[in-house]
Amino acid sequence: MVANSRHNVRYLTRGYYYHFHTYSDRMGLSRYIAFVGIPRNRVEDSFFIGRKEEREPFRGAKVWIPHFVESIRGVQPSVNALIERILQLGLEKGSIAIEFPYFPTDGFQLLASRLPWVTWVDATPLLNELRTIKRPEEQRTIREAYSKVAQCIIRTFRQCREGISTLEIEEVLRKEMAQEGVSFLFALICAGPGFSRAPSPLIPWKRGEILHIDAGGEIGDYVADICRMGSLGPPSSQAVALHTACLEVQNGVRALIRPGVPCGELVSAGNRLASRYEFSSYARFVIHGIGMVPYEPPECTPESRRPLEAGMVLSIETDFLYPGVGHVKIEDAVLVTEDGSEGLGDAGREFQVI
Amino acid sequence: MVANSRHNVRYLTRGYYYHFHTYSDRMGLSRYIAFVGIPRNRVEDSFFIGRKEEREPFRGAKVWIPHFVESIRGVQPSVNALIERILQLGLEKGSIAIEFPYFPTDGFQLLASRLPWVTWVDATPLLNELRTIKRPEEQRTIREAYSKVAQCIIRTFRQCREGISTLEIEEVLRKEMAQEGVSFLFALICAGPGFSRAPSPLIPWKRGEILHIDAGGEIGDYVADICRMGSLGPPSSQAVALHTACLEVQNGVRALIRPGVPCGELVSAGNRLASRYEFSSYARFVIHGIGMVPYEPPECTPESRRPLEAGMVLSIETDFLYPGVGHVKIEDAVLVTEDGSEGLGDAGREFQVI
Repeated sequence: MVANSRHNVRYLTRGYYYHFHTYSDRMGLSRYIAFVGIPRNRVEDSFFIGRKEEREPFRGAKVWIPHFVESIRGVQPSVNALIERILQLGLEKGSIAIEFPYFPTDGFQLLASRLPWVTWVDATPLLNELRTIKRPEEQRTIREAYSKVAQCIIRTFRQCREGISTLEIEEVLRKEMAQEGVSFLFALICAGPGFSRAPSPLIPWKRGEILHIDAGGEIGDYVADICRMGSLGPPSSQAVALHTACLEVQNGVRALIRPGVPCGELVSAGNRLASRYEFSSYARFVIHGIGMVPYEPPECTPESRRPLEAGMVLSIETDFLYPGVGHVKIEDAVLVTEDGSEGLGDAGREFQVI
Repeated sequence: MVANSRHNVRYLTRGYYYHFHTYSDRMGLSRYIAFVGIPRNRVEDSFFIGRKEEREPFRGAKVWIPHFVESIRGVQPSVNALIERILQLGLEKGSIAIEFPYFPTDGFQLLASRLPWVTWVDATPLLNELRTIKRPEEQRTIREAYSKVAQCIIRTFRQCREGISTLEIEEVLRKEMAQEGVSFLFALICAGPGFSRAPSPLIPWKRGEILHIDAGGEIGDYVADICRMGSLGPPSSQAVALHTACLEVQNGVRALIRPGVPCGELVSAGNRLASRYEFSSYARFVIHGIGMVPYEPPECTPESRRPLEAGMVLSIETDFLYPGVGHVKIEDAVLVTEDGSEGLGDAGREFQVI
């Protein structure tokens, strides 16, 4: 198996990625790309292919991978190094998994032409599955990322004033995340009663309106995605009812979470709980695994019989898009524990009244 | 021609990219990808392919591209939409340029199997060439990015204290960039007399040592890359001599820059100027185009006869790796103007003495 995306390379190195190219891989006529290769049942032959300039930071990070293979920048040199390594290992007639969605087309053309007897398969499902149960150190990073993103959202609400645009709110949030060492990913910000969630200089948050901030940030490729509600002035009784319903649904589903429960039961429970309100026709309920990738395993559809296991992380989302009030939403995550679940970044679930 | 990298999609839309996926494209078993297609001599048939959720922000950005093609997330649906559009345009027997280093392998397999008569070529050189001469609004963004990165580096130096680690210095710089609305790309930080540039919690900046911060940040995919020198306490006479030499080389090369001068002459001049010192054996001189991509055109090798043109942006780097003192480096950029050049982000070129 060969990992070639930033997040899966980082997953397999247990945290290492070349700092110079973490946020931009583009360079000249090509780009940076790193590979981690793990031959089946031959973990001692595992290798990392990177730029020669990263040998020192790679060593400094004490990565467990025994072989560092030097390349120079660009897809072709890195893929040539990969081909040589595959030939040295005698794997040129085997099955090799690479991450298709992140493997460059010119790199694959070279690979396929030089290694015509290899059977190429997509590594994405395998790597997603590997990441499903979070190790203790991953749980710590995820807990930290969620806790910080929740605090950043609360502090962002507190800096809002009447008339602030949703784009300005995003800018406040970006700065808060930077202060906490969280890499900003996205902010979906919705000032009611409209339903647009794209931050805009043209959409002000007005007195009497609700607003949601649905934000993503990451630490070391672990994504925290949280949605919290605010109100400029006291929220209307309808807004309070919708927000209360979100929390009731979220908490009702959480109460069921423990190892052994089939994922599908959570979906059914969420849908059932969300259907008890007079405004239930405006409800949407979603649950999905999260970690390095939003919508990673376990897959949560009503049909899924897969049992929960300790170490899984689930993102749970309840929305009501209610005309005249706006988009009321709470999104939270939980870590499945041996005897139930642990809320991640639970701060600020109450209405943030400004 | 089809652009499929974030930076070239943004270049062709003149600034638009879907905010939700600007910093992370990964999702489930696949990833987000957008396409901009421009049929030769049929600009009215140009199209953008994106997620249906981005129709509204795309419209809000008033992008010039006449056709918005809705897809859903994932490589396969987006490539299917691309195939349909190519067929509708009757281009299934033509030559189509795509960005190979950024085109996903599974996407290309689908494309090639459904469009077997197309001749596929790499769009990277064409797009790099298109970006060579910066439009006035691009010049404004680049000027802003350079100015802000230079100020961030100065403010970072001013927050340094004896014993601060190079990793802590990076953290200060990240926060400064976030405050300015600049996306952090990288920081190469070198505390003399060592030559390691990877920020580390184990490398403190000590009294009497020099330090360089070589940092990259971006605004809207336009990269600013600047290196500045500091000293904790007064720098040694040798450090001053090396730093002065950097500025002399940089300024000497700058003095030659105007439209019509062959790129190769700048390289020769830089090498010649850097060779006049008793410590010249430690010198390195590099010049390269920069904009959305480091090392974009014009290519600057001693052999290059390509004449400079107004609107090009050049990054100029002079280094001395001097044993016992450290890595002394100044990196600056200039915009080629009608009658010479304009320095970009020139603040803080003097020794920052802490």
